[in-house]
Amino acid sequence: MITRRFLSLSLALSISAFSCVAVQAAEFTASNIATAKSLAAKAFKSDLAYELDESLSTEVGPRRVGTPGDQAGIDWAVAKMEALGFDKVWTEKVVTPGWERGEIAISISAPYPQRLVAIALGRSVSTPKGGIEAQVVHFKNLDQLKKEPAGSLKGKIAYIGYQMQAGIDGDDYGVAGKQRHMGSEVAASKGALAVVIRSVGTDHDRIGHTGGQSGNPTIPAAALSMPDADLLENMFKRGKPVIMKVDISAHNTADVETQNVIGEITGTEKPKDFVVLGSHLDSWDVGTGAIDDGMGVTITMAAAKHIIDSGHKPKRSIRVILFAAEEIGLYGVKQYYQRHKADIGKHIIGAEWDSGTRMIYQLRPGVGKESMPAIKQMAAVLQPYGVALHDSNTAKGQSDLSVLGNAGMPAINFDSDLTDYFDYHHTENDTMANVPPETMRQASAVYTAFAWLTANSLIDFRK
Amino acid sequence: MITRRFLSLSLALSISAFSCVAVQAAEFTASNIATAKSLAAKAFKSDLAYELDESLSTEVGPRRVGTPGDQAGIDWAVAKMEALGFDKVWTEKVVTPGWERGEIAISISAPYPQRLVAIALGRSVSTPKGGIEAQVVHFKNLDQLKKEPAGSLKGKIAYIGYQMQAGIDGDDYGVAGKQRHMGSEVAASKGALAVVIRSVGTDHDRIGHTGGQSGNPTIPAAALSMPDADLLENMFKRGKPVIMKVDISAHNTADVETQNVIGEITGTEKPKDFVVLGSHLDSWDVGTGAIDDGMGVTITMAAAKHIIDSGHKPKRSIRVILFAAEEIGLYGVKQYYQRHKADIGKHIIGAEWDSGTRMIYQLRPGVGKESMPAIKQMAAVLQPYGVALHDSNTAKGQSDLSVLGNAGMPAINFDSDLTDYFDYHHTENDTMANVPPETMRQASAVYTAFAWLTANSLIDFRK
Repeated sequence: MITRRFLSLSLALSISAFSCVAVQAAEFTASNIATAKSLAAKAFKSDLAYELDESLSTEVGPRRVGTPGDQAGIDWAVAKMEALGFDKVWTEKVVTPGWERGEIAISISAPYPQRLVAIALGRSVSTPKGGIEAQVVHFKNLDQLKKEPAGSLKGKIAYIGYQMQAGIDGDDYGVAGKQRHMGSEVAASKGALAVVIRSVGTDHDRIGHTGGQSGNPTIPAAALSMPDADLLENMFKRGKPVIMKVDISAHNTADVETQNVIGEITGTEKPKDFVVLGSHLDSWDVGTGAIDDGMGVTITMAAAKHIIDSGHKPKRSIRVILFAAEEIGLYGVKQYYQRHKADIGKHIIGAEWDSGTRMIYQLRPGVGKESMPAIKQMAAVLQPYGVALHDSNTAKGQSDLSVLGNAGMPAINFDSDLTDYFDYHHTENDTMANVPPETMRQASAVYTAFAWLTANSLIDFRK
Repeated sequence: MITRRFLSLSLALSISAFSCVAVQAAEFTASNIATAKSLAAKAFKSDLAYELDESLSTEVGPRRVGTPGDQAGIDWAVAKMEALGFDKVWTEKVVTPGWERGEIAISISAPYPQRLVAIALGRSVSTPKGGIEAQVVHFKNLDQLKKEPAGSLKGKIAYIGYQMQAGIDGDDYGVAGKQRHMGSEVAASKGALAVVIRSVGTDHDRIGHTGGQSGNPTIPAAALSMPDADLLENMFKRGKPVIMKVDISAHNTADVETQNVIGEITGTEKPKDFVVLGSHLDSWDVGTGAIDDGMGVTITMAAAKHIIDSGHKPKRSIRVILFAAEEIGLYGVKQYYQRHKADIGKHIIGAEWDSGTRMIYQLRPGVGKESMPAIKQMAAVLQPYGVALHDSNTAKGQSDLSVLGNAGMPAINFDSDLTDYFDYHHTENDTMANVPPETMRQASAVYTAFAWLTANSLIDFRK
């Protein structure tokens, strides 16, 4: 009996000891959670993120890579991080292709002469001096254009009319974005002189949406505002040939230099391990970049500041990275990865904000299975802020951080309600007027809790 | 008894006969009302007004006085009225001052260099070649600017930051409009080099609102979009001198010719007496003029067409007048009045549509006291369409028609809900995307009923 009891007991103890180790590795301590709750509550009452975004928008404004605004943004970020009390602040050089927007004029010359409101797409080439004037051929979407025989658009302008649909998850951006990314490449392969698309957006404003293109665009490319796309389609409906003038002076230039800006709170136990808060500092040159990604820049800076101000020191470091040159193809994070790939294992976990103006409604993890209990604890901390845990575990991080996520860094995606985000995305309307203070407060609370919980533990989120 | 009874009876009869005459003069017949109800019901189901507005917006677009679009609009209107079956269609020459918008570039050069989005106000003069660069002085409103000592703004730019408030009755346009109408005159009297105002509007879009100015502006005048006004005011808050560059090439030109376009349904009994449906055909050059006043043009044309199509002929004529050059100071109606003032007595009653995108919610009459019973009958016909009778009798007609109203023509003002009208007013967003089909149907029903009831009676609304 004794033997048997002893064996049972020792088995029980060893199971218990094993469980205990596993539990210790994959759960946050009660004290960690208590501090996270307190930090989140404080952040939720603070307008710091909003005030930082107002500062960035007012004192810097648009920050397209290679422009004086881009450099002003870098200078602003370094000075602000130092003033906020980060332990270390530094920049890392990034080199990207250069591009100038120039001027654009698009109009219909027949059957009904009218000026149209349009914007050049990123890395559009110019039209010949004086512009081009040609018949426009209407395609409902990129797939229809793809089916066009090669060479059949010789001497013509291709128009792609795909209308993005709004949704809380912004899913249709996947489809709509392709029309913009690949429109010029596909149209060029059919012989078109230029491509004009319906803006990738969900608004009804007479403002075009710019954005990046894949590959190396060889023909001029522009996006019409939604009412102008309607106007053009109404002309097509009348069955007469539609003749368009397109005059674009956008052009590629020599490479330009920019910088990733990095600020760190140094950890007490594992200073070389760090949690990443990501965003991008560059913006398009329309709007002031208050939303995309001024919100991400200032939500993550504010999260760090709430931790700094608390007097608590995390065990691991917290690294706030403001990536450069996201809009033209993730150049900043790609060069960051090249520079730091030997240390990718030290990137414990990351979360980025690079979409949304409305509240965060869910958390999607991308971590090792053993870490799920901790993620559930994190979700419980965030639940009072309206954040639900999504039933999946495949997240790789938003935009920039997806590069590190795909290289093995665990990530959390905090999804905000995107219903009206694509009303403003890549437009003149990317301004403080469309940044809701309540979102800034909620998102600050979420990123503060995330950063504290993960940095103040020694959980290996890869497991 | 008999005598007394006879006397009583004859008194009763004579009172009754008197009442009867009064009642006949000031009430619509049952048959008239029945036809009005039937016409309104048909109009309410018809998208004709919307389709006409789509046609005007697509085939013509912006119609600023003196531009090719203005002439195209006149040609469109004449052709369309003839096609719709008006009995008579003609134009009347109007001469107005000429003005060219030219180009505009406004930016802040210190303390925080940023481009601002702005639009020149109507009849703004140009800056000297190369623009001006000067310190900006912030005034909360025109009243504060008025208190500034004469000459104190020498070498400076005046900024007026009044923010219009939205409301169903659009009342604040009265106050806000003054900042625009009188800003340059008052600023010039203080010695300012130029005046820049916060746009007169209620939106948050990065789009400026243009509009007319009173008097003869002698200094350049422009309106910032709302987010740009916010940006400028955020810079003022930082307490450093704000230096602005203003480069405007707008300028006055020689007089230009345009035309009022008039279409008439000829009355059967009193063809020289007519009911007026008013609107203006000109628009600003931003947007397509689909709302201001494409809606009025096409609602009133559709109302006439519904009557034409019914086969019923009104006793009096119905005159649909599309006035020219309203936006720059009611030139079209003023010259119409000069030409027709001897016949002002034949203008029986009028109603214009020149504001709103949402539904009509009330009817405000401006008629003789004896006509009120008829107006109450009209209100009863319109009540099922959500139109209430306002407890007043002082209306003079909207915009153009106010000139005829002030000259003695009775009028009805149909007030539409203006809550978001000033989001689009005088901007690029004056497009079909913001024209609700349901408003077009309701307003067509209202103007059809109004035109039929008043034209198919012989009531003298002056009494």
